[in-house]
Amino acid sequence: MYSTFAWAKSGADSEFDRIEIQRNKTGDDDVTFDIKFCGICGFDVHTCDNDMGDTKYPCVPGHELAGVVTKVGKNVVKYKVGDRVGVGCIVDSCLNCEGCDNGEEQLCRKGFTMNYNGDIKHGHIATGSGWTYGGYSRSYTVHSKFVVRIPDGFPLEAAGPVLCAGVTMFSPLVHWKANQGGVRVGIVGLGGLGQMGLMLSKAMGNTVTAISSSANKETAAKEMGADKFVLSTDSSSMSSASQTLDLILNTVSVSQNLNQYLPLLANKGVLVQLGVTFAPHPVHQLELMFRKLSIAGSLIGGLSETQDCIDFCHRKNIIPKIKLVTVKDLDGVYNNLRTKNDSLIRNVLDIEASKLMG
Amino acid sequence: MYSTFAWAKSGADSEFDRIEIQRNKTGDDDVTFDIKFCGICGFDVHTCDNDMGDTKYPCVPGHELAGVVTKVGKNVVKYKVGDRVGVGCIVDSCLNCEGCDNGEEQLCRKGFTMNYNGDIKHGHIATGSGWTYGGYSRSYTVHSKFVVRIPDGFPLEAAGPVLCAGVTMFSPLVHWKANQGGVRVGIVGLGGLGQMGLMLSKAMGNTVTAISSSANKETAAKEMGADKFVLSTDSSSMSSASQTLDLILNTVSVSQNLNQYLPLLANKGVLVQLGVTFAPHPVHQLELMFRKLSIAGSLIGGLSETQDCIDFCHRKNIIPKIKLVTVKDLDGVYNNLRTKNDSLIRNVLDIEASKLMG
Repeated sequence: MYSTFAWAKSGADSEFDRIEIQRNKTGDDDVTFDIKFCGICGFDVHTCDNDMGDTKYPCVPGHELAGVVTKVGKNVVKYKVGDRVGVGCIVDSCLNCEGCDNGEEQLCRKGFTMNYNGDIKHGHIATGSGWTYGGYSRSYTVHSKFVVRIPDGFPLEAAGPVLCAGVTMFSPLVHWKANQGGVRVGIVGLGGLGQMGLMLSKAMGNTVTAISSSANKETAAKEMGADKFVLSTDSSSMSSASQTLDLILNTVSVSQNLNQYLPLLANKGVLVQLGVTFAPHPVHQLELMFRKLSIAGSLIGGLSETQDCIDFCHRKNIIPKIKLVTVKDLDGVYNNLRTKNDSLIRNVLDIEASKLMG
Repeated sequence: MYSTFAWAKSGADSEFDRIEIQRNKTGDDDVTFDIKFCGICGFDVHTCDNDMGDTKYPCVPGHELAGVVTKVGKNVVKYKVGDRVGVGCIVDSCLNCEGCDNGEEQLCRKGFTMNYNGDIKHGHIATGSGWTYGGYSRSYTVHSKFVVRIPDGFPLEAAGPVLCAGVTMFSPLVHWKANQGGVRVGIVGLGGLGQMGLMLSKAMGNTVTAISSSANKETAAKEMGADKFVLSTDSSSMSSASQTLDLILNTVSVSQNLNQYLPLLANKGVLVQLGVTFAPHPVHQLELMFRKLSIAGSLIGGLSETQDCIDFCHRKNIIPKIKLVTVKDLDGVYNNLRTKNDSLIRNVLDIEASKLMG
């Protein structure tokens, strides 16, 4: 094991503190890298706040890591010291099931290990405690299978959000064939996920409708690729989009009435839920039956899809809009995400700028 | 208009009575046929009982009609007097929308007109009242667009159930690609829909699991094509099928907890709801997200799909198991369907044998 530092919460109500943590030394199949930047995701806030009731403290959040390799194990041929790499939500899995074999580690039969607050059980990562510590930290060591190469020329500070928000949108677009273009895609919620959804689905050749409860986002949404803007709080705006969409990606992570979006779907349309919400949805099946509609869920994506996503972003010049913050800003950023997670700009923690703080 | 007879309910609590009804005379685009047989569907019972609260009385149910053409309009070239034809759930639609243009009249933007208890609004059918009368009747007249040809050699008495129960299963099997074979299909509920689901999905080249709450159906299910039988009330039987199915077609038409079936789905699997139920389902989206699952609905199929279905059945020698009943048996049959709609044998009303009754 080796020591490094991280910013952690010691409880749901505490503020961030700098602590010392342990990580496993670089094994034969591992990559160790200095984290330079870590994106801040709404899920970080849910976890720190113990919204799922399973948070272990100290909790070091962060699953949008981007940095530079400092050491590789002897079996690692794909990466070398100095390479620019990233790590997203998945840092371990069984590596021996249908999901893992297909490069869909997010569907690992035994459950993948999350970057932080994840149960350590597959044996390829260690922290000295029973759970993982995330990317609000100096250094990370992980099996090379879970590392993504950041393409030359892609800005390092903007890479992290691609590995979580990006692939979260990319994976359902691919699964429901929007990567072949010509699909009428709707994106609900214009936050960190939404901005990636707009840019990705437009770059794939689809017609894109942005759906938001904030009228003041129309301009930004159109700049990011939306062909049309629908104000979800305005019934005439919603009516104007009636039955016009084949695929809706709903990024909103507060409980809401799904039935409001079904009228936007054309026959045989699919509504994909992507935000973390806990209350059950009352789904009326007659509505699904009469128009052959589907309600689905999707969660991030596997490692090969994550690499495909950042390569696609690089090729299409899709760069997440970000704002660099330091550890001193964290509590304020968290408060904003708690009240309304709808900024089109992703906050990214600048580890270098923060390293002497807190 | 012309007069013919039918068996009708005058209220939710009444028994069947023979009444005289009016139908439109054979227009230029119409086909008139003598109904010889009419299958009895669970939906007939829901409607007669006014379960949806929209039943108009007198109510003449029946949407699995099979008979012989007695007259055709001058524009009709596809059918002639003496042809064996059938009519299913759809007897009118706008004929001028995306759904109708694609042969998916069940998705008609203005709403298709149901064979019985349907609002008369598109102008191609008439009864003298504001609503349609179904197939428990001597004669029917309908636009030729809504007529299906019964293949030579296919037993007329078994054709009706193909036009409702058959296409109800055929359409989702096609939509979710099981018609190409190699899909692991589960069929929940072994009634009239279930038997068609087993036979169709097996004939398409899939691996088929029958899922029922009745242990005594195992033999019959396997005779109809099931490779495996799962007893839904037995937790070890359900566990043995964990994550083994790509597509589940759930035919059960009483409210039930959908979440019991999701563990049977493999990653990226789809649960399709086909039965008419009214209570909303509490759907937890995290379960959908973690395994990229979908919950969908499907309702019958369009006319071209219905023709494809009965042609496929004829080619593959799929004949619904039926039991002929007369109008004197109707009240008893309805009571059975009300308590547990799980007979693998479809009841079919023999109009010829009943014509002097009631």
